[in-house]
Amino acid sequence: MGCPEPSEARSGLRAEVITVGTELVQGLITDTNSAWISTRLASIGVPVDYHTSVADDLEHLEQAVKLAASRSGVVIVAGGLGPTADDITREAIARAAGRPLVLHQPSLDYISGLFASWGHEMAENNRSQAFLPEGAEVIPNGSGTAPGFALEIDRARVLVFPGPPHELHTMMDEFGLPYLKKLRTSPQVLRVRLIHCFGPGESQIDQEIRHLMPANRNPNVGLLVSNYVITVKIAGHAPTEVEVDALIAETEREVRDLLGEVIFGTDDETMPVAVARELMKRNLTIALAESCTGGLIAGMLTEVSGISRSFLAGVVSYSDEAKRGILGVPAELLEKHGAVSEAVVRAMAQGVRELTGADLALSVTGIAGPTGGTPEKPLGLVYIALVDAGEAEVRRCNFHGSRERIRVRTALTALDMVRRRAMSLPV
Amino acid sequence: MGCPEPSEARSGLRAEVITVGTELVQGLITDTNSAWISTRLASIGVPVDYHTSVADDLEHLEQAVKLAASRSGVVIVAGGLGPTADDITREAIARAAGRPLVLHQPSLDYISGLFASWGHEMAENNRSQAFLPEGAEVIPNGSGTAPGFALEIDRARVLVFPGPPHELHTMMDEFGLPYLKKLRTSPQVLRVRLIHCFGPGESQIDQEIRHLMPANRNPNVGLLVSNYVITVKIAGHAPTEVEVDALIAETEREVRDLLGEVIFGTDDETMPVAVARELMKRNLTIALAESCTGGLIAGMLTEVSGISRSFLAGVVSYSDEAKRGILGVPAELLEKHGAVSEAVVRAMAQGVRELTGADLALSVTGIAGPTGGTPEKPLGLVYIALVDAGEAEVRRCNFHGSRERIRVRTALTALDMVRRRAMSLPV
Repeated sequence: MGCPEPSEARSGLRAEVITVGTELVQGLITDTNSAWISTRLASIGVPVDYHTSVADDLEHLEQAVKLAASRSGVVIVAGGLGPTADDITREAIARAAGRPLVLHQPSLDYISGLFASWGHEMAENNRSQAFLPEGAEVIPNGSGTAPGFALEIDRARVLVFPGPPHELHTMMDEFGLPYLKKLRTSPQVLRVRLIHCFGPGESQIDQEIRHLMPANRNPNVGLLVSNYVITVKIAGHAPTEVEVDALIAETEREVRDLLGEVIFGTDDETMPVAVARELMKRNLTIALAESCTGGLIAGMLTEVSGISRSFLAGVVSYSDEAKRGILGVPAELLEKHGAVSEAVVRAMAQGVRELTGADLALSVTGIAGPTGGTPEKPLGLVYIALVDAGEAEVRRCNFHGSRERIRVRTALTALDMVRRRAMSLPV
Repeated sequence: MGCPEPSEARSGLRAEVITVGTELVQGLITDTNSAWISTRLASIGVPVDYHTSVADDLEHLEQAVKLAASRSGVVIVAGGLGPTADDITREAIARAAGRPLVLHQPSLDYISGLFASWGHEMAENNRSQAFLPEGAEVIPNGSGTAPGFALEIDRARVLVFPGPPHELHTMMDEFGLPYLKKLRTSPQVLRVRLIHCFGPGESQIDQEIRHLMPANRNPNVGLLVSNYVITVKIAGHAPTEVEVDALIAETEREVRDLLGEVIFGTDDETMPVAVARELMKRNLTIALAESCTGGLIAGMLTEVSGISRSFLAGVVSYSDEAKRGILGVPAELLEKHGAVSEAVVRAMAQGVRELTGADLALSVTGIAGPTGGTPEKPLGLVYIALVDAGEAEVRRCNFHGSRERIRVRTALTALDMVRRRAMSLPV
């Protein structure tokens, strides 16, 4: 796996990311800032070579910054700018730069103004947040007390941001990216296009497009796998945006011709976003009846803003009484076939469709585990039904793994059935 | 934030983690392996100082391993053991160790046996997975083709595992931890206890327990914040397990006395797990009526295995028609007060309680955004109702932030109301 960048792109500005926090290296919190920073840097054509996380340890951070500044042109540091004694980033950067910390009066005024606006008195330790390495350029923080800053160390531009994601995101996008764009000397524009597929396994996709995957091709093509989604990654470089876009578009066409409708989305489009798009494009309404997924599908679909135009209602019919009482599943079906059966999943979908009047109704029932399996109905047995005015489409699946994995795979499989059905209907 | 470890614990075996993959440093995949490895190492008293992620780059990985092996007693490497040309971990480790790669015949036999059992022919490149640095100890992989291995580089024990989490987890727990336990020379046992709180802000919790937080106290007490949950972290060390457990239990008692019922769980207990525990302990049943959270609460609650004893059903009444038709919310309430109102949230809860006969019924309605706010009913306005046979409890909240953050905070606030109500009832 993985997609090496072409060596021609290696000569430009390259970056690394350092995140700071004992809770990160202790594994109490998963570091999501590093990945986010990498994707933002990629968007302006600055590739990242290393992510490093260090504890709230003055000497460790100082050494990590010195090492990074000796080998990369851009170093992004996030975290450790809070007001407490554990927050050692300002001091560590000052040491790495060989400069003293000095009071930045406008930042102090800003911080004390913030406290005044909240009706609180500023704690003494918040003063420390206005002390920055001498000569550093200040990066204003519109949503928190800690200013960021930028300075040169060794041959690198070092940009330092607070760790809370909503502060980091705004400051990176409003200050960091424009600042770094000006530094780019390389005439190469890098661009990555992600094409997401669902259904076939990695090896099947690999077989279809393997001929597009030689290591030194530009654009380079690779595969990523995450949570049952196989992603084709097309990474290209060219002297201008127009040229790189044309290069990538050509390869994307080839990939689309080969893979067809297993492709559900691109870049940051998730399966629920793709389903919502296809439903809304056709003014189709939908209702859900969920048993083993327990509301997961409804939760995923309603993550999409604007979905209220299409999504009418969902019923999480966890108990047999709910299947009977709310969805009108006949008691004799439940008795004869059991709750996990083709007859019941079909009746669930028909029931919620009648209840809501939706164009499409989707239902799932299954055994997500970790207990409840039998030889005839093993753990991971799942039925999915999709009904409209015509026939019902029913799928019987045997999934494996943990409760969580079975639920997620069921939800994605069910949503993909909706996507394909919607796409088969006229716009 | 963050909890420095007491300096006495610094003399023992310390570790760092290196994860390998271009997709990681490009930010296409968030590295969750590093955090998982850290928590497993913490469980046997081996603290971690650094996480590093590097691309599939032979030289970068070789340098990273050499640096890590020069400063830490244990280095865990994960990823890059696949069969393709991009998988450079075997070669990079061999170079860092100054040893050649040699064929390990039992591993080759195992890999070809795996392919035979799948009915496939082994691809030529899978042979490469059986080449390991000379003298390395092999770590068998029961669920994939790539064996791991352990060897000494510089003064460090270096353990190398495949990247797929289900392979890594089994191999780390079955081989890695027992192997490392034998190396520990320090008589100190480290232990971390996490106490999760919901409701008050970080500064309020901080004020209550600040006197327990001096830097050099054993056990050390610190605060972590993640997704509206404030976690008190108690980290202790002592010569024996009994002593460290007693130390931590004493501090936990003090924290519990001070914080009381805002504490909902410990260690890996999430809010849904805590709610499920309190409901099941009392044989209480529950039903949900969700509007703005769109099934999120049902999805969270049904993540908990065994919840079918308590959770009867949920209705995601996204449209006004669903509120009327399924839950029986009177049309005049919807017209007079609007869907986001105290009258409607109360009627939703009562409706789903009548529909299901549950002991408790929880309902939410609100404006999650990013559009739909008005001056009277701004974005983030949320009503939550909890009803039982007696009076309804209704909360009006004004939340801020993105659609996702408003939905998550609404779900946690609603679940916490259920937890507190359940705890007020006899067991």
